[in-house]
Amino acid sequence: MDIDSYLTGYADGEGCFCVSFNRSRRHRFGWEIRPSFSISQNGDRAEVLRLFHTRFGCGAIRPDRSDRTVKYETRCINDLVERVIPHFEQHPLLSGKREDFQRFARICRMMYARDHLRPEGFQVIVRLAAQVNGGKRKYPRETIKL
Amino acid sequence: MDIDSYLTGYADGEGCFCVSFNRSRRHRFGWEIRPSFSISQNGDRAEVLRLFHTRFGCGAIRPDRSDRTVKYETRCINDLVERVIPHFEQHPLLSGKREDFQRFARICRMMYARDHLRPEGFQVIVRLAAQVNGGKRKYPRETIKL
Repeated sequence: MDIDSYLTGYADGEGCFCVSFNRSRRHRFGWEIRPSFSISQNGDRAEVLRLFHTRFGCGAIRPDRSDRTVKYETRCINDLVERVIPHFEQHPLLSGKREDFQRFARICRMMYARDHLRPEGFQVIVRLAAQVNGGKRKYPRETIKL
Repeated sequence: MDIDSYLTGYADGEGCFCVSFNRSRRHRFGWEIRPSFSISQNGDRAEVLRLFHTRFGCGAIRPDRSDRTVKYETRCINDLVERVIPHFEQHPLLSGKREDFQRFARICRMMYARDHLRPEGFQVIVRLAAQVNGGKRKYPRETIKL
């Protein structure tokens, strides 16, 4: 049994690569860009979330206020780029979610390189994020601009 | 990347070990016992279902009439006992679903040995099946008796 391959399989079904945008005065161009990798689960399968937490060595497990589930989530851009993304490059997703992941990885690496602080970088990220399925659309893409 | 561990991880999230009962005049004690291993998926992730189909060498992939999903399912008791169950014993589930699986495996092996045709075996199976989460309860346990 290879635990890393197991985690990739689990994430291919249940994981979410998401990029959300929030209105923010404190952020460049008035928008906070928030990438996250998360997995939600009924409490009775929380042990798998602990496996992700331990294996990735980052993120947090929290009860989800909106329903009776527990969520593992990593939002920290350094952890995403240095820990989460390399895992899924070494142990690749096998479903169509792989394409979401690739766009997600590109966005995270641009932010890691602080490209999102330049207008061109910001615009590329907005375009890519619109193609990442997991992202809940609080704001339609057209409303997010410089 | 170990494909078997990946499949176990995927199944730990998305798979269902289910034992259902149907009224039947043609079956001993008036009940057909139907164990199945299945995974449902939106059409856009059907490639993972094909992986299960190929790797296990049994079962079938079908569109699910009730919604817009595709389902991989193995119902044949010989395939369950000779192919599906050994996979999950060699590459074990790591969530609480493991306990469902163990009861499911016990039921399948009893049927493989034709124990379900004896009253004692039938009753053990009814009791075990009531503890397998995946089973949709068309009939409450109390209604299934000799």
